[in-house]
Amino acid sequence: MADYRNMWDDLGMDLEKHDLLCEALPDAFHEVYISQQDRPEGMDYYDFVVAEIHGVRPAELVEHRKKGGKVFGTFCVYVPDEIIFAAGAIATGLCGGSQFWVPGGEKVLPANTCPLIKASVGARLDKTCPFFRLADIYIGETTCDGKKKAWEILSEDVPVYVMDLPQMKREKDIAAWTEEIKLFLNKVEEVTGTKVTPEALAENIKLIARKRKALERLYNTRKNSPVPISGRDALLITQIAFYDDPERFSSKTNELCDELDKRIAEGNGVFPADAPRIMITGTPMAIPNWKLHHIVETCGAPVVVEETCTGVRYFENSVDETGTTLDEQIQALAKRYMKVNCACFTPNEGRVDDILRLVKEYKVDGVIDCNLQFCGLYSTESYLVQQALKKAGIPVMHLETDYSEQDSEQIRTRVQAFLEMLGD
Amino acid sequence: MADYRNMWDDLGMDLEKHDLLCEALPDAFHEVYISQQDRPEGMDYYDFVVAEIHGVRPAELVEHRKKGGKVFGTFCVYVPDEIIFAAGAIATGLCGGSQFWVPGGEKVLPANTCPLIKASVGARLDKTCPFFRLADIYIGETTCDGKKKAWEILSEDVPVYVMDLPQMKREKDIAAWTEEIKLFLNKVEEVTGTKVTPEALAENIKLIARKRKALERLYNTRKNSPVPISGRDALLITQIAFYDDPERFSSKTNELCDELDKRIAEGNGVFPADAPRIMITGTPMAIPNWKLHHIVETCGAPVVVEETCTGVRYFENSVDETGTTLDEQIQALAKRYMKVNCACFTPNEGRVDDILRLVKEYKVDGVIDCNLQFCGLYSTESYLVQQALKKAGIPVMHLETDYSEQDSEQIRTRVQAFLEMLGD
Repeated sequence: MADYRNMWDDLGMDLEKHDLLCEALPDAFHEVYISQQDRPEGMDYYDFVVAEIHGVRPAELVEHRKKGGKVFGTFCVYVPDEIIFAAGAIATGLCGGSQFWVPGGEKVLPANTCPLIKASVGARLDKTCPFFRLADIYIGETTCDGKKKAWEILSEDVPVYVMDLPQMKREKDIAAWTEEIKLFLNKVEEVTGTKVTPEALAENIKLIARKRKALERLYNTRKNSPVPISGRDALLITQIAFYDDPERFSSKTNELCDELDKRIAEGNGVFPADAPRIMITGTPMAIPNWKLHHIVETCGAPVVVEETCTGVRYFENSVDETGTTLDEQIQALAKRYMKVNCACFTPNEGRVDDILRLVKEYKVDGVIDCNLQFCGLYSTESYLVQQALKKAGIPVMHLETDYSEQDSEQIRTRVQAFLEMLGD
Repeated sequence: MADYRNMWDDLGMDLEKHDLLCEALPDAFHEVYISQQDRPEGMDYYDFVVAEIHGVRPAELVEHRKKGGKVFGTFCVYVPDEIIFAAGAIATGLCGGSQFWVPGGEKVLPANTCPLIKASVGARLDKTCPFFRLADIYIGETTCDGKKKAWEILSEDVPVYVMDLPQMKREKDIAAWTEEIKLFLNKVEEVTGTKVTPEALAENIKLIARKRKALERLYNTRKNSPVPISGRDALLITQIAFYDDPERFSSKTNELCDELDKRIAEGNGVFPADAPRIMITGTPMAIPNWKLHHIVETCGAPVVVEETCTGVRYFENSVDETGTTLDEQIQALAKRYMKVNCACFTPNEGRVDDILRLVKEYKVDGVIDCNLQFCGLYSTESYLVQQALKKAGIPVMHLETDYSEQDSEQIRTRVQAFLEMLGD
């Protein structure tokens, strides 16, 4: 990694502690990623991004801020990036995916909190992530009890603005979300000092659409058998989508897809064509959480699709681009975002429909329904997900895990048993 | 207890399992309640209600239903009882407070769910509570992740209608809650077949106000030193308020208050005047959850006030009675209910203000901030509550517990240490 110590120091980071994180990542990345056979050459870009994870992109954000630009840190796929970019600002995902940050979060949060929230809060309070230092403001949302209350504690340390996501999906809730996006636009204008014009918003709706389309194209390649790219690699790409420059990301991902298309035409894949095809559904996997994918794929089964926020929920559904006024555009944004089926909604039948549809589209042999520990929403909804899958005759197993490695061997044993059952 | 077996059988209850519950309750009640010294005579009524807990009131509800009346089961202080009674129906609280029901809930809910939710779901699915059988419809709300998702599972077994409580307290959120109460009124009219008139609503706003006033009067007596009634008894009365006939409850509670006023005039109390005065704040204690009160008071300290939903949150703030149209009345209801400071709101500074105010009003020496296990809202908010109390120089301890008795001795040891510290 290039030397970014001065930058990190300027950002007020705890360099000594951060060194420990930097030391651990390369080995983990090598074990999960570099050790894979037949990786597409186009993965070089994403490998580089990870190798320089706290350097290259943060340096770009530092440059952006030196020119007076603002950085918005986000934690959820419901926050409309389009608005942020339309004001000349940059949105960057901040969800923490490493056990390294969990103890820092536990200093202020109950131990019974999901590791994603604990890691996110710990990354900020421990000063060990440049993205958490760089963001001028954090954008929270009311998607779950844990995050909702964590914003209050974080706001003692950094400006936080919270969007109130409705809990249902009636017409009036879509209208309420439209109102909430309008208030968010006002806030973005206030923070950036830039008036959002319909032209700028139209342009950035297209920018984010290109990113979504590139991801859609990537995921479509995974519908093929043999699958041309591993689930680990697809997950990594999606994770990087949350904070990379959207234009560059789209371009690099499309390049990779050209390569994958060739593989498909030639019948080349990274797993045998008869390997059982796995879907993972449940809670998001923030970078560098590759635990379950690594276990499943080293057991011999490709993960071909993720019905998660670091999977199809991030890019499915497009924003209608015909609106020419801010009101029309915001309404189109609200409609698109309200189509995402998070377990925070009640009821959330759309998610079960999505899972059943994806099983067909991706020719899935078995579903692993996995939630992070203490995520009450997904763990409770799991009852209904399993019920629906069993009714449809689709094999399903439920797992609950955290960011530690303690349960890895136990999970491996359960996954192996599940895969054997699929083979019968 | 009189013989209600035929009624329970008619209600489709599991009589054998229910017998086990009926056998356990009298001993527990004797230990916590009847063994107390110098109880007010007026507690006889509430003792009788508990002795006949699954008999007398259910029999009244059965009669009501035989005449075509409807019963609405509720789980939260945000559901406006006024609307239900105005349609000639009866509202009854359904929150489960016994470990007996927890395993039934765990059959469909994650073990990492708060015991109140598990017990409530278990009481229904195990068919061991007449109130859960009697309710024609359950009214849920979106106050926490656990309840929000539990409604979806319960709705496979019983009709459930969910009110979407806003997550913030801006002007537009009060307007949204007004809208939600209007929809609820429509639903109540549909279920009952009765049109709610402004006259009927005005009358029932007054009915519920009398109940709140009676509770307020009761709690006001607890501001005296020595305190004329134990915290256990006050908690029991509040728990009964959730399902007793409101008119009778108000009358009986006012009778008791007459007796308490005499005690105060005579300087009589149930604890020595110099015993440390304790406030309990946190999650609700549904009947028969008397665990913490019993521990604290048998350690020698009276609980003089509860900043909980089975405490002041249930009766503080009154509904403006000047409205003459449904719109005005509903708006007045929305404003009153949105003043309740549950941890489900973000931010929820009002609760900290309430706690600090109640410390003064009730001359509190120490605060026990206690939440049910896996309640992410109150356990996370605890950080801010403790911070505020420490800043104000008020001793505070945090506890997390469930409905089991396993941690009772551990809690007793911690409470004793806290009380000793208060005495220093």
